[in-house]
Amino acid sequence: MPELRKDPVTGRWVIIATERAMRPTDFIREHVVVQGGRLCPFCPGQEQKTPPEILAYRDSGGPNEPGWRVRVVPNKFPALRVEGELNRQGEGLYDKMNGVGAHEVIIETPDHQRTFGDLTEKQVEEVLWAFRDRILDLRKDIRLRYILIFKNHGEAAGASLEHTHSQLIALPVVPKRVQEEIEGARKYYEFKERCIFCDIVRQEMESGPRVILESDHHLALSPYAARFPFETWIVPKRHHSHFEAAEAPAIQNLAWVLRVVIRKMDKVLERPAYNLMLHTAPVQEGAMTHYHWHLELIPRLTRVAGFEWGAGFYINPTPPEIAASFLREAGLV
Amino acid sequence: MPELRKDPVTGRWVIIATERAMRPTDFIREHVVVQGGRLCPFCPGQEQKTPPEILAYRDSGGPNEPGWRVRVVPNKFPALRVEGELNRQGEGLYDKMNGVGAHEVIIETPDHQRTFGDLTEKQVEEVLWAFRDRILDLRKDIRLRYILIFKNHGEAAGASLEHTHSQLIALPVVPKRVQEEIEGARKYYEFKERCIFCDIVRQEMESGPRVILESDHHLALSPYAARFPFETWIVPKRHHSHFEAAEAPAIQNLAWVLRVVIRKMDKVLERPAYNLMLHTAPVQEGAMTHYHWHLELIPRLTRVAGFEWGAGFYINPTPPEIAASFLREAGLV
Repeated sequence: MPELRKDPVTGRWVIIATERAMRPTDFIREHVVVQGGRLCPFCPGQEQKTPPEILAYRDSGGPNEPGWRVRVVPNKFPALRVEGELNRQGEGLYDKMNGVGAHEVIIETPDHQRTFGDLTEKQVEEVLWAFRDRILDLRKDIRLRYILIFKNHGEAAGASLEHTHSQLIALPVVPKRVQEEIEGARKYYEFKERCIFCDIVRQEMESGPRVILESDHHLALSPYAARFPFETWIVPKRHHSHFEAAEAPAIQNLAWVLRVVIRKMDKVLERPAYNLMLHTAPVQEGAMTHYHWHLELIPRLTRVAGFEWGAGFYINPTPPEIAASFLREAGLV
Repeated sequence: MPELRKDPVTGRWVIIATERAMRPTDFIREHVVVQGGRLCPFCPGQEQKTPPEILAYRDSGGPNEPGWRVRVVPNKFPALRVEGELNRQGEGLYDKMNGVGAHEVIIETPDHQRTFGDLTEKQVEEVLWAFRDRILDLRKDIRLRYILIFKNHGEAAGASLEHTHSQLIALPVVPKRVQEEIEGARKYYEFKERCIFCDIVRQEMESGPRVILESDHHLALSPYAARFPFETWIVPKRHHSHFEAAEAPAIQNLAWVLRVVIRKMDKVLERPAYNLMLHTAPVQEGAMTHYHWHLELIPRLTRVAGFEWGAGFYINPTPPEIAASFLREAGLV
């Protein structure tokens, strides 16, 4: 019998196919292979092909010269613009405002040939520091209410440039899915006076079948009501609502966990396309007792069809317990 | 300056790229071409390859024989099963129930070579009657709270079989996206004492730039805060919460409008893959003053990336006013 499971945070029901569960080899997949890039605008020596850099961690060279390890630049075709007033206004029953915000690209390594999973632990850590540094800078602009950080790896996941990079979009509104998560967590807190993510971490560590990896600071797990096969969350074990409040030991530990999880994914699913997404609290809010930042990692193994778009209703052909056991047993720790 | 627009029903903000708007020729597209199917389980003469039919409109023949015009069968690999108890239960802080429900396939024509847009108006009408007949039958089972009807056309839209068909999934829960829409509409009604969809129809007919087509009973429009390029809604002009309450003149008129809109889409976007989705009220509820059924049609022109999944936040590169003008001016009315 298939099972309907409810995501405890958002209340979304998901169908989990418990019979004929799909295993890694059942998915028709795009393996992400680096083709190599002449004229890649993210490669060292091509710095003039991007807008001037906002941030760089360097071994040598001046701004917009080679010698960087991680480099952050504005998106050349930004979805939002930093200049201008929000100018909120109505249009009959509709509401609109100017697209004020920021859209940046975090170039994760000068080496075009490496994917994110090929980076060293130190390199992953520097990418995480770049995320933190950019959030701390952008949040000074009080028009900006939410900062989305995400990574599209491979064409099937929406990546248009091959050279490994993440993106940041700073918005004057809180996105709906984030708002729902915060709202769901708030309702749980009101009812239980406990953070739901803290409760999830506790229950998952006790029960075990959905745990992929546990470290000093983090738990990597397959969520109970996963929408997608091999969907994975990385959740800090201690309560923090804002990613940017994380301190050096936690960031270092996250780099280790994230790298291991990506490498496990690369091994079990043979270098799949994936999306990685940081869920964190709105930047202008103080510390929240009810919300808890985390990373969500979704390999792109299946096509999303009409009712998933139309209804926000998902069928997951791989029970999270099976996904977790494959990833857990892949080694690489 | 890009524009942020808010969907008035759900409250979701969308970025509309107003500069460098993408036009039909800018999209890299998969054109859906029928390859032809030997051994297609949906073709006449192959009736024994599907589970026994639930409903058929026929010119000749007995059940599970050729001679049908529209045929409804259970999905051979159903996501849910009709038999069994819901058996709602907890698992620590989680909630689950058995996957009780129905999963059916509506085979829209015996002719493998025709796409949905190639059907006659009469054929489209019969497909709509089949939707209605199946809802009226399934809603007698009071365990079933919501009936999703959708169509995936083309591989990029998630179709796995080429022979044109729709699907129906009957669920013991109301999907989250639907619940949100109903909830948003209810809040508007509480505030205004008017149905928001009725207000949208009125405002769109008055203002005009997002109207694609108006008929006696329906309005086809590009929604103000469209998530996707060329996203199109077909909304009844008179208030009805439940699709299955539609009467013959409305169904006939809907067949005409839907066929014209699909043919316009096929012309302007060169036979794109698309998803079509019926949004209607939960079947066990009485008529609702605040909710209004409608169809949503989304051509699959762009890849969906990390922040769209992760945050439910969309960037639409084609302003709905431009999409509507292309579709409006494509003729075929």
